[in-house]
Amino acid sequence: MSVALVGAGPGDPELITVRGLARLRACEVLVYDRLVADELVDEAPPGALRIPRDDFQQEDVNKLLVMHGRQGRRVVRLKGGDPFVFGRGAEEALALAMAGIAFEVVPGVSSAIAAPELAGIPVTHRGSASGFLVLSGHATDAFENGLKAVQPNAVTLVVLMGLGSRHELAEKLIARGWNGATPAAIVCGASTPDEWVWTGTIAELGANEPPAGIAGVVVIGDVVRVRERLVAAEEQKVMYGRNR
Amino acid sequence: MSVALVGAGPGDPELITVRGLARLRACEVLVYDRLVADELVDEAPPGALRIPRDDFQQEDVNKLLVMHGRQGRRVVRLKGGDPFVFGRGAEEALALAMAGIAFEVVPGVSSAIAAPELAGIPVTHRGSASGFLVLSGHATDAFENGLKAVQPNAVTLVVLMGLGSRHELAEKLIARGWNGATPAAIVCGASTPDEWVWTGTIAELGANEPPAGIAGVVVIGDVVRVRERLVAAEEQKVMYGRNR
Repeated sequence: MSVALVGAGPGDPELITVRGLARLRACEVLVYDRLVADELVDEAPPGALRIPRDDFQQEDVNKLLVMHGRQGRRVVRLKGGDPFVFGRGAEEALALAMAGIAFEVVPGVSSAIAAPELAGIPVTHRGSASGFLVLSGHATDAFENGLKAVQPNAVTLVVLMGLGSRHELAEKLIARGWNGATPAAIVCGASTPDEWVWTGTIAELGANEPPAGIAGVVVIGDVVRVRERLVAAEEQKVMYGRNR
Repeated sequence: MSVALVGAGPGDPELITVRGLARLRACEVLVYDRLVADELVDEAPPGALRIPRDDFQQEDVNKLLVMHGRQGRRVVRLKGGDPFVFGRGAEEALALAMAGIAFEVVPGVSSAIAAPELAGIPVTHRGSASGFLVLSGHATDAFENGLKAVQPNAVTLVVLMGLGSRHELAEKLIARGWNGATPAAIVCGASTPDEWVWTGTIAELGANEPPAGIAGVVVIGDVVRVRERLVAAEEQKVMYGRNR
């Protein structure tokens, strides 16, 4: 394969897949997202060309991948989480396919599932949630359409890129009929040393101050209570989560 | 950490995380799901105690983890996909926490996202889907409640463990107001040599014969068309997907 679209996982460099790391260590060109851990960028060979994605528009990223791929270079496009979850990875795949460039997709651990999980919150849990809906809070229209799609309090709701709009998120959920007392959580910097977790209710979602500059996930639903039970046990001298 | 709840990923042994493999290679006791690749079971040290999970009820699995954990053994509980997605991993976490056993969770690549992805289907795609809902088809009640939770054709729908009930799934979707012409896909054995993919529409969902004995995912939504575009390009001599 010439180009590999690789998911870096939720943050901790050890949460990349074995195949993803192998592709990274063998690459000649690395195009990487800002959110990807420095340790992973350092895994590319010393001589590899390193291109931070932030310097380019999406269309130009596609062109870069096609250009280097066409020259037969081993290209890795390293993306936070999973390449096909709000990552525009499918657009890159289509651009490569249309240009006739051989490529592969190496899935990654998505923050949509892993960020809550690393905070002790399962997106599904027997008796609490039999399904989960993942939305992006980034674009207001898409978010509102997504919210209209689901009945209040029926499944776990996970919102990626919704930290900045958590006040509006709470207002919109309550306006749509969600119970303001529904458990809610915010998980920032999951699996990194900067991990920050808040739990409360939908009504309290705006009344907290997550750390600036790191990605966060909002989780809504009874599953948040699993964390509270785990934390209660932890306070009785049980460790939970990352190595520490 | 004494006990690690580790996600094995969607099937291909190289799609486990780097940390998950490290825990596996260092374990003294391995409790593993039937769906996990043999190659991963073989990664445990030769002297490790290997316990197939299928021989036990969930409650007994919890007891086994607590028992070996209490004796200070390095225990790995290896589960297909991600431990906290329909995996009852949170029940195991709670059992360990309540017993005061130190543990960690190592997320895995979930088949809910990766199975469609490896078949060229992104669960989200600009202009096609701004969110995705994941349900299990295993328990009829939970599935029906999940289906009631969502407006027809509003987001991508991913159904795990729904292969056996794909006829009813199609009927229920159409009865709930989904357009029978909505694109649908079935992906079996994603990322393994047995991979089998079918695409069509909701109305045609029952009219196919997936291979028996391997896990499959059903995907409903316009995002299925991305695969069709990728396959069309592949037919012009472009390779896509796994190494092959």
